[in-house]
Amino acid sequence: MADCDGAGAQTPLQLYERLTAQGEQVRSLKTAKADKSEIECAVQLLLKLKVEYKQVTGQDYKAGCPPPENLAVPDNGPAAEGATDEDEVNPWSVTTTNAKGVDYDKLILRFGSSKIDKELVDRIEKVSGQKPHRFLRRGIFFSHRDMHQVLDAYEKHKRFYLYTGRGPSSEAMHVGHLIPFIFTKWLQDVFDIPLVIQLTDDEKYLWKDLSLEECHRFAVENAKDIIACGFDVNKTFIFSDLEYMGSSPQFYRNVVKIQKHVTFNQVKGIFGFTDSDCIGKISFPAIQAAPSFSNSFPHIFGERKDIQCLIPCAIDQDPYFRMTRDVAPRIGYPKPALLHSTFFPHSAKQIKNKINKHAFSGGKDTVEEHRQFGGNAEVDVSFMYLTFFLEDDEKLEKIRQDYTSGALLTGELKKILIETLQPMIATHQERRKQVTEELEDVVKALHWAHHQ
Amino acid sequence: MADCDGAGAQTPLQLYERLTAQGEQVRSLKTAKADKSEIECAVQLLLKLKVEYKQVTGQDYKAGCPPPENLAVPDNGPAAEGATDEDEVNPWSVTTTNAKGVDYDKLILRFGSSKIDKELVDRIEKVSGQKPHRFLRRGIFFSHRDMHQVLDAYEKHKRFYLYTGRGPSSEAMHVGHLIPFIFTKWLQDVFDIPLVIQLTDDEKYLWKDLSLEECHRFAVENAKDIIACGFDVNKTFIFSDLEYMGSSPQFYRNVVKIQKHVTFNQVKGIFGFTDSDCIGKISFPAIQAAPSFSNSFPHIFGERKDIQCLIPCAIDQDPYFRMTRDVAPRIGYPKPALLHSTFFPHSAKQIKNKINKHAFSGGKDTVEEHRQFGGNAEVDVSFMYLTFFLEDDEKLEKIRQDYTSGALLTGELKKILIETLQPMIATHQERRKQVTEELEDVVKALHWAHHQ
Repeated sequence: MADCDGAGAQTPLQLYERLTAQGEQVRSLKTAKADKSEIECAVQLLLKLKVEYKQVTGQDYKAGCPPPENLAVPDNGPAAEGATDEDEVNPWSVTTTNAKGVDYDKLILRFGSSKIDKELVDRIEKVSGQKPHRFLRRGIFFSHRDMHQVLDAYEKHKRFYLYTGRGPSSEAMHVGHLIPFIFTKWLQDVFDIPLVIQLTDDEKYLWKDLSLEECHRFAVENAKDIIACGFDVNKTFIFSDLEYMGSSPQFYRNVVKIQKHVTFNQVKGIFGFTDSDCIGKISFPAIQAAPSFSNSFPHIFGERKDIQCLIPCAIDQDPYFRMTRDVAPRIGYPKPALLHSTFFPHSAKQIKNKINKHAFSGGKDTVEEHRQFGGNAEVDVSFMYLTFFLEDDEKLEKIRQDYTSGALLTGELKKILIETLQPMIATHQERRKQVTEELEDVVKALHWAHHQ
Repeated sequence: MADCDGAGAQTPLQLYERLTAQGEQVRSLKTAKADKSEIECAVQLLLKLKVEYKQVTGQDYKAGCPPPENLAVPDNGPAAEGATDEDEVNPWSVTTTNAKGVDYDKLILRFGSSKIDKELVDRIEKVSGQKPHRFLRRGIFFSHRDMHQVLDAYEKHKRFYLYTGRGPSSEAMHVGHLIPFIFTKWLQDVFDIPLVIQLTDDEKYLWKDLSLEECHRFAVENAKDIIACGFDVNKTFIFSDLEYMGSSPQFYRNVVKIQKHVTFNQVKGIFGFTDSDCIGKISFPAIQAAPSFSNSFPHIFGERKDIQCLIPCAIDQDPYFRMTRDVAPRIGYPKPALLHSTFFPHSAKQIKNKINKHAFSGGKDTVEEHRQFGGNAEVDVSFMYLTFFLEDDEKLEKIRQDYTSGALLTGELKKILIETLQPMIATHQERRKQVTEELEDVVKALHWAHHQ
């Protein structure tokens, strides 16, 4: 078996030479129809070297193009903004040069948020009186802003509200898209608080080559899936921007207030907008910010502007809310608190096909090898899905151990996942059917009981 | 009497030397307590030289600072964009280096609009069957875009609608502010068509150091004055952006459509925005553009998007509508047509005091001089107001002749103006009182008969 480690070269030129040699190696192995695992190992080393090359040179490796002689080696400090080895994380793009995926601890440092540590998870359990959701127990929600402050207030019987959202860019929502809503539902249930859900159909229109009508139709379709997650309809307000902006003067007033207090320089810095971007994109961040303030929803909160907002969202949405938190005190509103999740895998329409055919496997290529060397649960997409959807901690750990030891085969792992997901999906689709009738009311927000 | 002409110097340095000498001359005349008209004449020549100096050098004259030797003389071609002797005309600033005021013919060339010539005025008379309004007869509305097209369609029984507006930056509207509305009312009456009036309270909030509440209150107060102009309330929809944006999903949809099709580069070029401007300003032009499209008002026009819009406005608002006309075909809407006015003088709250105390007079300083030399109607603010408000052409011409010949004294001219304005003001204020009750309905647009 080939040695899978060995990336130890130092200078850009040395790295370049090793990379070139390794590329040759992969090609000759393939030509020789070598053993699959041997080729895979050679490819992995090649990728590792490419990542290292980019880290050291700040450039992508290109065969035939050695690095310039007087190359400046970039600063690799953990909080160095813009350093080329950093993960790029913003609402439209998540890229990483790290073979293991996005480095979330680094992201906490860079974004200036706080880690959701055991102490916070324990405190949520104590305050809510409920076992923490598996997404908290398993570090899927890993970062926060001001969550302790929210809990302090809650302990003093000061309630807060939840805000989350979705950009409806396609008709079908997959199980991966529903993960943030599953967690939000749990928060709503355990804290018994109002929830607002923004469908940014205007954003999708501005960013995508779609008509307003298409974007709005996606919003309506997506709303059905979201409602089917089982939210308390008496405490949930789900709205499309294209509808609500034109239905609530108070919402528009907050949008204008925010727009007055954010410059183009700021959104350029935060979101990377350029002079060629349309003015709709440039001003959109204010529309995603506005639901963070309770008086954007007078039918729920009356004129109260002091009810704190807690936003559960994926970490890539944080730039919007860094901006929001910067603006909030300048317009007399409390800063929203945040709970950040890692990125979710997105599955396809047909769960079963997807899992069997396309999921990246941490398993070995033959049953014999798998039994001998075991699988790698850490990179196995099926196992990752189980961490999202299998509630039982002990069962999950047993699966992990069996897969790692080789006792559990990849096919068997996939079967467990399918068995876990299928009843969930069935329940969801049943709920989705029922939701249709009441949907129009919910989306158009015409019937909302006044909660304070 | 001093010779009032004589600015014939050619090179920048010659001009500079004449200017310096003329400055000396003014100072010594003042020191010597010379005859007022002699001083005035010397000052006028000084101003004339300063304007010429700026035209030639592109710089303001500064005593003690001769022009640089190798000064490039700017191109003074009539349509040369950015030449330093050009009038600056945009929605926030109107400046001219020309002693006679803004050169409107040049503006037509620069903006690429068309002159309202006798042929067009005659045609409006023919199509409407009404004597043209004095603002048309007297060249106060002087420029247009596509007015012939509007009339062509009208002759084929295709109706259009009117759109005008106001930025409500203060509680009190003066008689000068009402001039565009007086003309718009005439257009509504003679063509018998719907009218929408936008009060851009959001714009004022974004540009001024005012609260949202103040801006909205100004909008409501201004609406009273506008309604008091006597519009047909069954065919007029007056709205505040802060109210209507949050009351009409269709209006917001058009705003977003426009925002998708205009880049920051474009608004930078048109309005001179910079990276330090807030994102609200940058995206605002779309909000002023949206009422140009009939489906922004479904309560008036249903879903029809093909009803042409005619916008009577002061020429400084043209940049908004150049942008709108650029966007329109790209989003499937007709381009709005325009009628441009010159700038209006703004009077103060108390007409009488204002006219007597502060109005710039074309009269001479003593009765004797005035009788001997006559007054200058062209620069007399009282006479200018009469051109706006005195309907009778013959009477106006008689006044002009008598004032120019010296038969009519400045005090007498002012008296005629006061007698012309006071009944108008009285009627207006009476109407304004009556309007208060129905105002809320009109402003909030809750009661609009469906017109097509």
